[in-house]
Amino acid sequence: MKAAILTVGDELLDGYVTDSNSAWLARALASRGVSVAAKASVGDVKEHIVEALARWDGQFDLVLVTGGLGPTHDDVTKLACCAYFDCGLRFDEAYWAELVSRFEARGYDIPDNNRSQAEIPTACETLPNPAGTALGLKFRSAATTFILLPGVPREMEAIVTGSLLPSLEGPELPLRTLRTTGLFESALAQQLGPALEALEGVQVGLLTDVTGVDIRIRAGATGAAGSAAVDRAADDLARILGDKIYSTHGDSLARRVGQLLAQRGESLAIAESCTGGLAAAASTAEAGSSAWFQGAVVAYSDRSKIDLLGVRAETLAAHGAVSAEVALEMAAGVRAALHADWGLATTGISGPGGGSQAKPVGLVYLAVAGSGATKVREAHLIAEREPHRRAAAQSVLDLLRLELQRHG
Amino acid sequence: MKAAILTVGDELLDGYVTDSNSAWLARALASRGVSVAAKASVGDVKEHIVEALARWDGQFDLVLVTGGLGPTHDDVTKLACCAYFDCGLRFDEAYWAELVSRFEARGYDIPDNNRSQAEIPTACETLPNPAGTALGLKFRSAATTFILLPGVPREMEAIVTGSLLPSLEGPELPLRTLRTTGLFESALAQQLGPALEALEGVQVGLLTDVTGVDIRIRAGATGAAGSAAVDRAADDLARILGDKIYSTHGDSLARRVGQLLAQRGESLAIAESCTGGLAAAASTAEAGSSAWFQGAVVAYSDRSKIDLLGVRAETLAAHGAVSAEVALEMAAGVRAALHADWGLATTGISGPGGGSQAKPVGLVYLAVAGSGATKVREAHLIAEREPHRRAAAQSVLDLLRLELQRHG
Repeated sequence: MKAAILTVGDELLDGYVTDSNSAWLARALASRGVSVAAKASVGDVKEHIVEALARWDGQFDLVLVTGGLGPTHDDVTKLACCAYFDCGLRFDEAYWAELVSRFEARGYDIPDNNRSQAEIPTACETLPNPAGTALGLKFRSAATTFILLPGVPREMEAIVTGSLLPSLEGPELPLRTLRTTGLFESALAQQLGPALEALEGVQVGLLTDVTGVDIRIRAGATGAAGSAAVDRAADDLARILGDKIYSTHGDSLARRVGQLLAQRGESLAIAESCTGGLAAAASTAEAGSSAWFQGAVVAYSDRSKIDLLGVRAETLAAHGAVSAEVALEMAAGVRAALHADWGLATTGISGPGGGSQAKPVGLVYLAVAGSGATKVREAHLIAEREPHRRAAAQSVLDLLRLELQRHG
Repeated sequence: MKAAILTVGDELLDGYVTDSNSAWLARALASRGVSVAAKASVGDVKEHIVEALARWDGQFDLVLVTGGLGPTHDDVTKLACCAYFDCGLRFDEAYWAELVSRFEARGYDIPDNNRSQAEIPTACETLPNPAGTALGLKFRSAATTFILLPGVPREMEAIVTGSLLPSLEGPELPLRTLRTTGLFESALAQQLGPALEALEGVQVGLLTDVTGVDIRIRAGATGAAGSAAVDRAADDLARILGDKIYSTHGDSLARRVGQLLAQRGESLAIAESCTGGLAAAASTAEAGSSAWFQGAVVAYSDRSKIDLLGVRAETLAAHGAVSAEVALEMAAGVRAALHADWGLATTGISGPGGGSQAKPVGLVYLAVAGSGATKVREAHLIAEREPHRRAAAQSVLDLLRLELQRHG
């Protein structure tokens, strides 16, 4: 089964928005054995949408179209399909009543222009949208099924997961993701080198981000044989990479840290300077993190480091806020202040300003404090503000993961 | 001048890689007055590349092709162009000598498969690649210029910045972005309704996210006339939306809050429960935020709310952690603890668990404490964990923005 994806929106063409929908859709379809053979983007122009539909009609089994289903003037995808399938619109009273009551339940009057969301092309079926107001719309020609989806990722994903994927019968192609941090892609590829070439029955892809490299292993076949090949490959690669791998099943680092803490009945507190809340946000992104996450102090000023974390004024004066000594006192201080078993701390220079010859932009000190020894690590990460902050937040969580694994 | 972008690579179709090249290219072209009218992706298949070249030849002035110029077996873009332009390859001895010496300078023997990087189609010019080994290639048909670029973003960007942009002389198309929060897209569109239709000489697009709706206004013409039309439209819409707009020039809400605070010489501290660090992370994402951001306390447990923020145990017992009363005490407490002029607080139920009939998932209390009165707002936001947290972090910053603007 072959599919194509059309993304609609001026903002995609002018580069204002990076399209993440089509990558998500391609992965979702692959999980049902459907491969994507073409992708295109057009602006909010009816004729261009019609032209793309016509080109792919008959060429692919499935055409997914995202974007342009909202209630405003630049949302023309529905009208383009009405033109292509030569049909009109009917007003769906039942759906309108549902929308009115959904808004009421949240304490809002429904804006009148939402009525357009209840105007359904007569030639299509609808797919429920549990996350928003724009329904999915399904048109069929002789050889091709067209599915129209909203462009808002959360809504698009909800419709696809709820209505589209269950209707695609192909068995899932087994897939596993090994997640690593602390290695460059080139170093990782070199370390795996011959092992990668010796793998059988799988395709391996490396995905790089400032927080680490993911190794995606896809089976060439469905079913038990495919699963076995993926597991064998994952085991082979995991053996080589050892503790560089923080998850063998695609979990976040914060989730892994939470699992290790929960197993031991221990808790965590974090003191953040340069990461400014990102390590706490990553931790609390995990549902159930209140079981192991006590809290955090974002200590951006010297005074807050002294008042809330008990960092000594003399340490700040002698070594500066960005120093191994301050990082250690921050970690110990937040551990004590929040009565946690473990304390973590970050202090660094994310830039663009604030760097010097001795302490350049990119420098960060990461510290961990437990009941035994405290440890600090100096790292030189990417010298660009937001990537630096993200990489530092990941690195400090990894410092704790390694500590917990070693003493597991 | 109209352009189209073709991105080549199996990894783009199967969703392993999110294409960021085409968004970067579109913004780079827009800066020279060139608009992108179509985008497409194909796999590493010669016939599919040729088909795309043929479809766009004559339709656009400029076609940019990224990917598939590397030295390995799946890099077929160059061969596809040779087929389309009916030419062969010549071996460029001078470029090969340059590659050999570049590798030598870094202490490596050049791998033999790099020889293919010196095989240049006879029908094209080359564009130097200061960041890698694959040259940019420039082909011309009667009406269209085709530029082939490597897929590695750093190399692609180096060639475009060094060789392509200087050759494009058009002035920039003026663009402005009004940013709003606290209004649904449908409500905003309704409020703007007739005003949107009355605008002249601009195109307006709405972009929705859980943190708000952006209104993007693009000029239809370059130069002073275009700028004037964009400014006029921005003023018209801003007048209608009033304080719903937090930035008239595309800035983040945290930056706007920082500007308002800096003007008054005041500072901010944040107490976060459900948002878990996201409001602090948004604040500290702004370079220079240390001038106005004191710090934050992520108080995930009752005990941390008591110990670090001075929330009273009786208040927690009487009203629960998710309550207006606790939000107010958190805001006042963090203001005092961090010696800030303003304190903000969030406490809510982001889910998936923890909801009840009386306090459902989605509920959040947002509080602000200043030198005068304290205020609290109850909001029912989206009932999904990460979007709820992001929307709540944005809402609490907006509470402060409105307070600062009213008393500005």
